[in-house]
Amino acid sequence: MNMRDTLDLQLNVFADFRPKLPESYRAAEVCFLSNIHPGLQTSVLDQLRAPQLIGADTMTHWIQDTRSELETLLGRVEVLTVNDEEARLLSGERNIVTAARKILALGPKSLLVKRGEYGVLHFSADSVFAVPAFPLEQVFDPTGAGDTFAGGFIGSLVKSGDFSPRSVRRAIVYGSVMASFVVEDFSLNRLRKLTLEDVERRYRQFVALTEF
Amino acid sequence: MNMRDTLDLQLNVFADFRPKLPESYRAAEVCFLSNIHPGLQTSVLDQLRAPQLIGADTMTHWIQDTRSELETLLGRVEVLTVNDEEARLLSGERNIVTAARKILALGPKSLLVKRGEYGVLHFSADSVFAVPAFPLEQVFDPTGAGDTFAGGFIGSLVKSGDFSPRSVRRAIVYGSVMASFVVEDFSLNRLRKLTLEDVERRYRQFVALTEF
Repeated sequence: MNMRDTLDLQLNVFADFRPKLPESYRAAEVCFLSNIHPGLQTSVLDQLRAPQLIGADTMTHWIQDTRSELETLLGRVEVLTVNDEEARLLSGERNIVTAARKILALGPKSLLVKRGEYGVLHFSADSVFAVPAFPLEQVFDPTGAGDTFAGGFIGSLVKSGDFSPRSVRRAIVYGSVMASFVVEDFSLNRLRKLTLEDVERRYRQFVALTEF
Repeated sequence: MNMRDTLDLQLNVFADFRPKLPESYRAAEVCFLSNIHPGLQTSVLDQLRAPQLIGADTMTHWIQDTRSELETLLGRVEVLTVNDEEARLLSGERNIVTAARKILALGPKSLLVKRGEYGVLHFSADSVFAVPAFPLEQVFDPTGAGDTFAGGFIGSLVKSGDFSPRSVRRAIVYGSVMASFVVEDFSLNRLRKLTLEDVERRYRQFVALTEF
């Protein structure tokens, strides 16, 4: 079964999937819309009372087949996360800087481009920020690195309560820190034994890795 | 004519090439041995009276066919510059951190791994440093980016006269600055019109690109 058949099967199985947020979730100030049908992402967003910071992920399938619903969502998004291939597909541009400019014109205030072992680029109207991936000698399984990055990024913003450009940069580094841990073991095994001290130690290693 | 035939032709044409340094060059404290036969690189090095910092470049061909002469040279080198493919070939390791560790065991005090549009990694016994490439919207011709990087790197060290780890990091950023200019036009055209102020402005853009 190819990727597309798998997706069609999922769409069929989940055709009646209509996420309904518990009342206690509707006051959330920060919302990250993980990778599902953009129409469903919008329906989740509509259930929040007053979100202050909205992030979203998407993928090739939605970019190709649900473009209109995706663009509707993008108009309401603060930060979109995609990988370089998705950025190129969404923009129709090969050069990643041009691609980012065109994607920002679709609505998102900023764009995070995930480049796997090469790190992350963050584009906004007046700033570009680059973080390398942490150079690891043992990468057991890269599955979930992008989602873990998004979780660490959003978690850092929620914890600080500060959505300034400087805080966003720190959050991108914390996202990179978390992604660097998750690939060190299968599934969530590494995250299960992770301590806050591990996280802070690796954050300091990112400082040492990049400062000049 | 394929790459290998071209190389064989060059080797034949230059079989009598024995670089001889003018007397005024022999007092140089800093020496960068560009990409020629490692035996010739060693013969150039032997002509220097008291070099304090020795850099060297190499490529796939020498790694495969003149391994022994290359290893002799590596024992005398402070910093080796290669791209990721060459690092993997030289070390026999796919993971770039493991590859770097094995290459350092061959002799160089530090290793610069050039990764094109993804930037540069610098490995030494006790430090790893990562610099992204400058995100450019117009890349006319990447030819010479690696050599220009090496020139900017060494030029910065010569100008500062400071070979400390902090100065080496700054030199790596200056190398990246120079490479980011050379790809903006064909040949050396962009460098010909470059001012020192252009260089310093882009160095500050690298600070803005990476600080958090």
